[in-house]
Amino acid sequence: MRDEILEQPGVAARLIGDRRDAIAAIAAAVRARQPDYLVISARGTSDHAAIYAQYVLGARHRLPVALSTPSLLSLYGVAPRFANALVIGISQSGASPDVVGVVAAARQQGALTIAIANDPRSPLAMTAEHVIDLGAGPERAVAATKTYTGELVAIALLSAALSPDPAADAALLLLPEALARATDAEPAVRRVAGDQASMTRCIVLGRGFHYATAREWALKLKELAYVLADPYSAADFRHGPLALVEPGFAVLAVAPSGATSADLVALLTRLKAEQGADLLVLSDRAETRGLGRWALPIPPDLPEWLVPIVSIVAGQLHAYHLTLAKGLDPETPRHIGKVTLTR
Amino acid sequence: MRDEILEQPGVAARLIGDRRDAIAAIAAAVRARQPDYLVISARGTSDHAAIYAQYVLGARHRLPVALSTPSLLSLYGVAPRFANALVIGISQSGASPDVVGVVAAARQQGALTIAIANDPRSPLAMTAEHVIDLGAGPERAVAATKTYTGELVAIALLSAALSPDPAADAALLLLPEALARATDAEPAVRRVAGDQASMTRCIVLGRGFHYATAREWALKLKELAYVLADPYSAADFRHGPLALVEPGFAVLAVAPSGATSADLVALLTRLKAEQGADLLVLSDRAETRGLGRWALPIPPDLPEWLVPIVSIVAGQLHAYHLTLAKGLDPETPRHIGKVTLTR
Repeated sequence: MRDEILEQPGVAARLIGDRRDAIAAIAAAVRARQPDYLVISARGTSDHAAIYAQYVLGARHRLPVALSTPSLLSLYGVAPRFANALVIGISQSGASPDVVGVVAAARQQGALTIAIANDPRSPLAMTAEHVIDLGAGPERAVAATKTYTGELVAIALLSAALSPDPAADAALLLLPEALARATDAEPAVRRVAGDQASMTRCIVLGRGFHYATAREWALKLKELAYVLADPYSAADFRHGPLALVEPGFAVLAVAPSGATSADLVALLTRLKAEQGADLLVLSDRAETRGLGRWALPIPPDLPEWLVPIVSIVAGQLHAYHLTLAKGLDPETPRHIGKVTLTR
Repeated sequence: MRDEILEQPGVAARLIGDRRDAIAAIAAAVRARQPDYLVISARGTSDHAAIYAQYVLGARHRLPVALSTPSLLSLYGVAPRFANALVIGISQSGASPDVVGVVAAARQQGALTIAIANDPRSPLAMTAEHVIDLGAGPERAVAATKTYTGELVAIALLSAALSPDPAADAALLLLPEALARATDAEPAVRRVAGDQASMTRCIVLGRGFHYATAREWALKLKELAYVLADPYSAADFRHGPLALVEPGFAVLAVAPSGATSADLVALLTRLKAEQGADLLVLSDRAETRGLGRWALPIPPDLPEWLVPIVSIVAGQLHAYHLTLAKGLDPETPRHIGKVTLTR
């Protein structure tokens, strides 16, 4: 798993270098169809890439994005009407029948379909009209890492191709180096993980673009370190769950500079001062990191929409080292396998 | 709060009796516009009503439903293009600026808009073109109960009006009595809550129509009993979080008969036999209840799409009595208030 975390700069560099033309052709097909909205079908880690797409394609192209509910088709036998929709399936393995089913129904109805997968010969890739092959190489660890950031890079490349802009293209080229710098946090991560070795539950906060990172960080903590990590948008968290936080309760926060910063800083300040939360703050901004009992850096100077691609690296390393600190093996999480086939 | 839980049969009866004509007129406006898809803007408990709508309107009318991401507008300043969309805002208070903002942007763009709220003079109700007034009377408890089931009844009535069907109309009339029977479980709920008084974390499972109940039950446990209750679709749960469950780990499940039953029963059987989970099973089916260390009933003989309106009652009572069993006061949860204004 650690090897695959460290492979991420190379995976991103290859995607950015090799997939531009293929993605430009897909973007041209999307522009030709002018979809009213998007539906994304995905599960688990790939569902967090779908959440990233919800914000990136919403903020940069004003596209409403629905996350599909595959059981409507797989259990209730009802295919939604996909009139004027673009339907994207995202899956590392490309194998889960419920995810494939949504894309198959959409294509049968004549909707434009795209698969994002790490196996161009998988059922998902064979089902969709267009395919973005992540080319991340085999992912052997049960916990997905390089395919997650690969999925995010693919979505960012699609966004850049939909509205060509030299600034976006230049920013994308910064990603491999920023991913490499994100792994520099490993010694700091190891110290934090050592301090938190007895943690059994926590909240993970993020908002907007950074909600995807909160969700994915929480999933890694659950599947590897068996910490019941509950992710929340900072807004939804105020509608009730805030009551949970008592002195010493661990709250992890993805709080980079940008549009969500003031909201997160206000909430974290309150959680610390009034409720005694033990904060772990992930930010590029030193002042925000200063709110935390613990803090981890995000490499600076990326535009906000690309930050989730690098901010998750500290989360991956944190879950990995917390698992080791608990005396568990991150390579063999109990009860789960690499490919999950849900119906 | 308990009084308001017990008011739910009356709230449902009034909605079904008094709002049919208004909702029929709204349904006629929806049919006239033939929207391609829906966007729903909501937070907290009302967001779980939105999830119910996602399944009901998907399964019964083949409508794709997107849950809106209000921060795109409120923090990033970007209004999605709502071409050919029906946009619904759901809120007990009708006051939260981010939820109102989405509906305002949609109406300004000419999209059809509906507010579902308990205050017809609230900003949300004044913003939308059409309003379904819950008429639930003032809700005084911080934890929403009767407005949640009221929101679900409003959505069910809208669905019935969109595709008139005598069987659906007849089934709706069963709801007040079924809600009353659901409260009969209170003595059993109190015993379960007593056994679980030391619980600090749990998983709550549901799928399809019943995922909304899992989400809402978990929220009640968080905001009242300070239990870190993490809700999952049974499918997404297999994609990683399954690893969390060790002997004695509490898993609560919404597992009624119907399309999701076989999937839930298979998962619960595994969680019990292979992972030693302590199951609390909510079902109308005695055989499914038999899987649990604890079990609670759902009134039988409702069509599956209406079950979520009554299944949450046991969850509300469970959260209420678990709060008492922990020596806490369900009327005064710490740190939160009745109306949460998020931006």
